[in-house]
Amino acid sequence: MAVLLARHLRYDFERPAHPANDRFVLSKGHASPLLYAAYKAAGAINETELMTFRRLGSRLEGHPTPRRLPWVETATGSLGQGLPVGVGIALSGKRLDRVGYRVWVLCGDSELAEGSIWEAAEHAAYEHLDNLTAIVDVNRLGQRGPTRHGHDLDAYARRFQAFGWHTIEVDGHDVDAVDRAYGEALSTVGQPTVILARTLKGKGVEAAQDREGLHGKPLKDADEAIEELGGVHDVRVEVQPPPAARMLHAVRTGHLDLPRYELGDQVATRDAFGQALAALGTARGDIVALDGEVSDSTRSEYFAKEHPDRFFECYIAEQQLVAAAVGLAARGWVPYVSTFAAFLTRAHDFVRMASISGSGINLIGSHAGVAIGQDGPSQMGLEDLAMFRALHDSTVLYPCDANQAAKLVAAMAGCEGIRYLRTSRGASPVLYGPNEDFPIGGSKVLRVSAQDRLTLVAAGATVHEALTAADQLAADGIPVQVIDLYSVKPVDRRTLREAAEHTGCLITVEDHREEGGLGDAILDAFLDGRPMPRLVRLAVRSMPGSASPAEQLHAAGIDAEAIAASAKLLVEHAVVR
Amino acid sequence: MAVLLARHLRYDFERPAHPANDRFVLSKGHASPLLYAAYKAAGAINETELMTFRRLGSRLEGHPTPRRLPWVETATGSLGQGLPVGVGIALSGKRLDRVGYRVWVLCGDSELAEGSIWEAAEHAAYEHLDNLTAIVDVNRLGQRGPTRHGHDLDAYARRFQAFGWHTIEVDGHDVDAVDRAYGEALSTVGQPTVILARTLKGKGVEAAQDREGLHGKPLKDADEAIEELGGVHDVRVEVQPPPAARMLHAVRTGHLDLPRYELGDQVATRDAFGQALAALGTARGDIVALDGEVSDSTRSEYFAKEHPDRFFECYIAEQQLVAAAVGLAARGWVPYVSTFAAFLTRAHDFVRMASISGSGINLIGSHAGVAIGQDGPSQMGLEDLAMFRALHDSTVLYPCDANQAAKLVAAMAGCEGIRYLRTSRGASPVLYGPNEDFPIGGSKVLRVSAQDRLTLVAAGATVHEALTAADQLAADGIPVQVIDLYSVKPVDRRTLREAAEHTGCLITVEDHREEGGLGDAILDAFLDGRPMPRLVRLAVRSMPGSASPAEQLHAAGIDAEAIAASAKLLVEHAVVR
Repeated sequence: MAVLLARHLRYDFERPAHPANDRFVLSKGHASPLLYAAYKAAGAINETELMTFRRLGSRLEGHPTPRRLPWVETATGSLGQGLPVGVGIALSGKRLDRVGYRVWVLCGDSELAEGSIWEAAEHAAYEHLDNLTAIVDVNRLGQRGPTRHGHDLDAYARRFQAFGWHTIEVDGHDVDAVDRAYGEALSTVGQPTVILARTLKGKGVEAAQDREGLHGKPLKDADEAIEELGGVHDVRVEVQPPPAARMLHAVRTGHLDLPRYELGDQVATRDAFGQALAALGTARGDIVALDGEVSDSTRSEYFAKEHPDRFFECYIAEQQLVAAAVGLAARGWVPYVSTFAAFLTRAHDFVRMASISGSGINLIGSHAGVAIGQDGPSQMGLEDLAMFRALHDSTVLYPCDANQAAKLVAAMAGCEGIRYLRTSRGASPVLYGPNEDFPIGGSKVLRVSAQDRLTLVAAGATVHEALTAADQLAADGIPVQVIDLYSVKPVDRRTLREAAEHTGCLITVEDHREEGGLGDAILDAFLDGRPMPRLVRLAVRSMPGSASPAEQLHAAGIDAEAIAASAKLLVEHAVVR
Repeated sequence: MAVLLARHLRYDFERPAHPANDRFVLSKGHASPLLYAAYKAAGAINETELMTFRRLGSRLEGHPTPRRLPWVETATGSLGQGLPVGVGIALSGKRLDRVGYRVWVLCGDSELAEGSIWEAAEHAAYEHLDNLTAIVDVNRLGQRGPTRHGHDLDAYARRFQAFGWHTIEVDGHDVDAVDRAYGEALSTVGQPTVILARTLKGKGVEAAQDREGLHGKPLKDADEAIEELGGVHDVRVEVQPPPAARMLHAVRTGHLDLPRYELGDQVATRDAFGQALAALGTARGDIVALDGEVSDSTRSEYFAKEHPDRFFECYIAEQQLVAAAVGLAARGWVPYVSTFAAFLTRAHDFVRMASISGSGINLIGSHAGVAIGQDGPSQMGLEDLAMFRALHDSTVLYPCDANQAAKLVAAMAGCEGIRYLRTSRGASPVLYGPNEDFPIGGSKVLRVSAQDRLTLVAAGATVHEALTAADQLAADGIPVQVIDLYSVKPVDRRTLREAAEHTGCLITVEDHREEGGLGDAILDAFLDGRPMPRLVRLAVRSMPGSASPAEQLHAAGIDAEAIAASAKLLVEHAVVR
């Protein structure tokens, strides 16, 4: 770190947004004292602030986050994430920004066991990211004890070489060797470099050096340790600023010409997503798209065809897919990430950490629910709404028709934090005209009368089932209200409360597990201590097999027939007025 | 597949539970027609059943699952999972079962981009699993187009060699070469083998061979294709049975002597977990434990010390951690998997697929909630309850004291499906005596009187805050009921309903995001259409930084002070009676 700061990093601490700044990522986020000490040495923070480490209100958290510190690129602390995000930043530098900054990532040796590191290694080498240098602190000790490979630097070198990296092995305590290694990394062309640095944890302090059982524990005698290390030093490092600012080329913004669909046409929301994203990419030069080797299914292929320079094929590696997006977002791009809803669970920890970063990424999960049909449960996103709703400050959207999907694809770019849009595989009729507006946090009342006995609340695929059920029920003399709750988070509290006051009973219908989805989401409207409506929930309760989409909806008890039957039961048993 | 079945696989289709059977895992689950055709050739299913492929009610789903087919070891269809689970089965064979079966895993080339494959590669080589053979169908085509490495078998071989595998490259259409490769794998000692087989997708059918854009699509002219392939064959394969059954050594079951804690003692539930698991391991020989290099924090180290032969250190690779457990469970072992609650999100897709398998695994997430204090949000499990509740047939437990934790650790082994137990970092007072029972689906009413104005529903860390608040409120003339809802799923509907009828208002208090946790869980008690109580929810709404545990609970508004203030507000505004 000392050699990097003093001799190689190009960074202006007073202008962290400087486009030509190098980028440093502390992948081993638990080494935050090292990072903060470096900030202190560089003059970015003072000693008083340094001593607030891990205290209430301090910017110097146990693990660094960009929410609080302007020099931090991404939140770390869950291991194996810094390098993947660093790859995303390096991709931005190489393919989009075209500014000569370098990305430096400090990794631990323990975290090399994470598969995400190898997804990142593969991605970086394949994209020839010679602007990326990983430094691995091979101190041979994890939290609990020795790592698998101890100080066997060759074991790591073999792996990185096989994945296409240039490797350098050094004594991490030999500053000249480290300096030469950085120089070699800087002069390596066409491939990323990893510097494998053999180190001793707690080097120079007899009570700690290379000893087990001390991870994360304060030294017993800090004064003695300071003395062993040669006494108190007020270390200052002059960090070189980047070369004269070469600003990013101005990002173009033009008229947004969203696709328009005719009422009654049969269109899948995944198609509308793909077409809307392509249009958004035409209107806005800062939009980028990433897909996990299923762009022909998610339909991000429409974007890829029109804007190949801003499309990133990430292959079947969902952790790296999301991490690359976080890296691109850190450089100011607006990423749209798409894969099957089911496979976004693979990247749950990455989305969680992105949320801690405050990263503004858009995620699109296609093929959601039992409505996909024959492919069976492994491909059905049945837990995605629960996963995304539980993230801090997230936005969760689930359109039921093509015009709605297109509008929401554009609107989500303007939200803060993690935004999730759920799309469907099968075609469904267009319900709304192309000029209809769909504000985030809104809903649409599709059926309403003064005589409504209860309210059906649906979203996405189940909206069409609810409408069919409502028409059948009306024909049978049981008028019901129907709400299209396309904004699952935040929910439209006012409309839900009005429906509750109007009808006294809400039936939620969702193509999702009963926990964490629509049925739970509407609770948000009723948590002010005021009286609650009666609630009934229709959701996926069993384990689906293979069957046609219609058979699946029927088996799960969320088709029009099941909805109408539930409503009738409530009316007949006088549960509703 | 033909060569494997005819010449190398040892399997008795009539006795899939035979302990000496080889195990076959179709990691590329979308190749299910190949698997089912093999079953047909082996005489396990007939042609009539084969033709039910992907139809309603058929055992032959789009992707195979062990819920429906007795010869399937684990559900696949989410790529990159079969090999990790195969490693778990091979571990079982090598370290526990000590039966000479082999594990064969057929992978796709696309899925080698998944980091989980490299976690598995690392784990298998480190454990010298020479009973494991991976076969990679390198057909160079993913769903959307070519893979990164096409037919470059060497690229894959370099990677596997670097990770410590024996590699063999063959023409996958040359049956003699494939046969020799299997023989070489069988005779390889001390390391796992991967057979990299160069193939052409759709080989032998002009309209399909090596062509893009046909993934998952039926042939346009099947009759012509059959003719090109030489006409209809009724292929039969005689699969050799395993050698005379060498049964598993009988699993010992003895008296369970759980740890006992004295009322009022300060004990962390993670300590109780570790001590109870060690005791359970002593009583039951089928209990195994796995940890992600944090056993000193989760406290599974207690088990590791007493039962080192049944403890599996999986290092920092949470996907492989869970996959290994699924593999061990497939062989009849009862695994307990532990890491920080936050890091179980890393394995979300693996837990989801385990749920589809119907796998009986126990997961323990430690360091849950803001109550961990200084380490900050990256280490806080704040979404874990939402994630585990949304899984089909899952059990979710959250003990508040040591005796309760110990009892639940033992009880969860008897549940079906995925079981999750959430533990806390800090010590808390023992509230219950060691003879108290805690049935799954139950709860404990800790404070109750005829005059209660409302009910506090808490679990884990917040139970102690709720009790303090209740005592303060009682002193202020506002008696309230307190429920310890240690079983978050299933919930104790009766007790919640009684409390609702008794007090009319429930305040949930949880150290978790407001979505998907305790506040949503109690809804389960009120979804029968009957009148609802008023509900108020206290949960973590902001992004925590670093602070002491008490400061964190206060900042999140879930400490005793915040609870008492909320209750008073409701009483003062006459929201409650």
